[in-house]
Amino acid sequence: MNFAHRTEGVHPSAVREIFKVIGQPGVISFAGGNPDPATFPAADIERLSSQILRKEPALALQYSVTEGYGPLREKLADRLKHQRIGSSSDRVLIVTGGQQGIDLTCRIFCNEGDTVFCEDPSFVGALNAFRLSGVRLRGIPVQQDGMDMDALEQALQQEKRGKLIYTIPTFQNPTGITMSIEKRQKLYDLALQYGVVILEDNPYGDLRFFGEEVPAIKTLDTEGIVIYCSSFSKILSPGIRIGYLCLNEAAAAKIVLAKQAADVHTNIFFQLLVNRYLEECDLDGHISFIRSLYRHKYSILLEELKQNLPAGISFTQPEGGIFVWCTVPGIRDKNLVARLMEQKLAVVPGSAFRTDDNAPCDSIRLNYSMPTEEQLQQGCRILGETIGSLV
Amino acid sequence: MNFAHRTEGVHPSAVREIFKVIGQPGVISFAGGNPDPATFPAADIERLSSQILRKEPALALQYSVTEGYGPLREKLADRLKHQRIGSSSDRVLIVTGGQQGIDLTCRIFCNEGDTVFCEDPSFVGALNAFRLSGVRLRGIPVQQDGMDMDALEQALQQEKRGKLIYTIPTFQNPTGITMSIEKRQKLYDLALQYGVVILEDNPYGDLRFFGEEVPAIKTLDTEGIVIYCSSFSKILSPGIRIGYLCLNEAAAAKIVLAKQAADVHTNIFFQLLVNRYLEECDLDGHISFIRSLYRHKYSILLEELKQNLPAGISFTQPEGGIFVWCTVPGIRDKNLVARLMEQKLAVVPGSAFRTDDNAPCDSIRLNYSMPTEEQLQQGCRILGETIGSLV
Repeated sequence: MNFAHRTEGVHPSAVREIFKVIGQPGVISFAGGNPDPATFPAADIERLSSQILRKEPALALQYSVTEGYGPLREKLADRLKHQRIGSSSDRVLIVTGGQQGIDLTCRIFCNEGDTVFCEDPSFVGALNAFRLSGVRLRGIPVQQDGMDMDALEQALQQEKRGKLIYTIPTFQNPTGITMSIEKRQKLYDLALQYGVVILEDNPYGDLRFFGEEVPAIKTLDTEGIVIYCSSFSKILSPGIRIGYLCLNEAAAAKIVLAKQAADVHTNIFFQLLVNRYLEECDLDGHISFIRSLYRHKYSILLEELKQNLPAGISFTQPEGGIFVWCTVPGIRDKNLVARLMEQKLAVVPGSAFRTDDNAPCDSIRLNYSMPTEEQLQQGCRILGETIGSLV
Repeated sequence: MNFAHRTEGVHPSAVREIFKVIGQPGVISFAGGNPDPATFPAADIERLSSQILRKEPALALQYSVTEGYGPLREKLADRLKHQRIGSSSDRVLIVTGGQQGIDLTCRIFCNEGDTVFCEDPSFVGALNAFRLSGVRLRGIPVQQDGMDMDALEQALQQEKRGKLIYTIPTFQNPTGITMSIEKRQKLYDLALQYGVVILEDNPYGDLRFFGEEVPAIKTLDTEGIVIYCSSFSKILSPGIRIGYLCLNEAAAAKIVLAKQAADVHTNIFFQLLVNRYLEECDLDGHISFIRSLYRHKYSILLEELKQNLPAGISFTQPEGGIFVWCTVPGIRDKNLVARLMEQKLAVVPGSAFRTDDNAPCDSIRLNYSMPTEEQLQQGCRILGETIGSLV
């Protein structure tokens, strides 16, 4: 069969292959990106589900509007307003998880051959969505305070068909790094200067356990060039697939058309449920609980990394989110990952997150939201011993 | 803002504009495509929901695999096998409603500028998905026994970049027409001869209330060139957004990559729920109930159309599904629709379903699944009187 050219650049990711062994007995996984199931407010969800299906089954089970459930959109707009995100000319739309927000944004803005600028490394799900739209990826190195702005400016000058800058400015996947406010302003100014749109992906922003909030890039957006994307995946449940976009009216209208063709609407039952949750439950209290849970897990990881890793091995020390990026100078990530698998520790090779996933890479991504305390301790011992035997 | 070229051919459909007035008091709608809410097994869904959220919340609310929930895929494969759909080399994948099945199929097969052949008129949601992939649409007229095969063969000869034939062979949207078995075989032979893939969309196949089943085109598929797409939207609930594909292994692998980039996975809670429903409830019994409900509504519509429409007005007489196509020779559909709206009857102009939606059209689509008996009677009186005053 002849498939579309755009499908050729995408292949089953290293991440997927690793996930196949994760279920095996005795394997400790630092590989996933899943939230701790303890963060799912299952009892509240069960109670609200039952209420919704008893009181308004025809609404919960019928076709619904593409834009999303009105009352939920209004509540989200209010929540965002408290973070100074979104102007009076912006719209909030419900999407089927943040992933759909990324995919549709790319589809409405980018012609085949247009350039998308992104952090390098970056979220592989976004990179694959871009690849499947037939765009050119231009990776920008990530520094301790976020994307390298000199490299970005040079890239903007060089690329004749630049269209979109994709960034995860807060607790970035895979590095955990947060972009400074100075760089956020610079990024915004450059986007404005070069006439490109910013897609600000913020799935982890609520998961801050140390330090001070850094305002979203969208808070700087006087010209309506920032598409803000977030979701309930990390604060309520990823399985429900409820994400949202905040964006200017013209782009919102295009997204609605593209979404209608993509899946008509996001499942309405869970839109009603999230709406009810926001009305009746204490989301901010629940987020505080998640923050303390991850603060605790991260503290264990950090302590264990410090104790177990040989000298010369660096790792990021994020103030939130669910990932740490560990760099072992001189090593090939895939060799390290294979050795760790032999010791039943699963991690993701850094190259999986590179815009050129064949490029050599000396880093791995560590997740600490899913492992238990014991697994964090044991995994770090395996990591230390294995790296020690290689360097 | 500069949007992608592919978004230019798609604009808010006439259907959407009509839907905005449907909620107004006193308006009777024959315009929708929604199932009757009486067909939602709400009590069963509520009971199973509660069980799932109590017994396996971590599974129901966590990220899940892109292919879909294994036990559900197996049950669907079994059900399809009873209809002789799917070979041992085929795979079943869960998608976010049939709409996503259509969209992803187009995305993995079609480059920009490739041709998709389809019935003309056809389902506007599919046409818009194709338009957004930047393909060329080649409409094939629909006869009483389905797509005009001579016109299709001529089109296959003429189009240099033919890639996909999209068809709703059973109770087609918008005409209600079912393709004969002879034409299904001819369509399959032509596809094989010209090296194009068939996308068989079958959302209404279970809704037969008269006549005999016609086997799916997929039952003829010895060469693995048919992508079969269906969903639970018309037999359980459209709001849950659970559809499925049955297709060969190579295409399945591409769809999985594209779906991962589109929405990661379909909401897992409702996959678990449908799986439980198939285990514990009587889906076939429920489908029998839906058939009898729609048989009754259709019979009323048919009777009222015969009584109220002036001579010379033709309409299709489907054996199932939820639509009738009514043709008023010499009229402009949009004029008729506007007059009907003045009388508070909403219908969809036929041109909304044409591959060239600016082409003149003398037909309208009538839906009978949503209106009550009284609304069917009153709506047909309005239809008869309004047409009578125009012809």
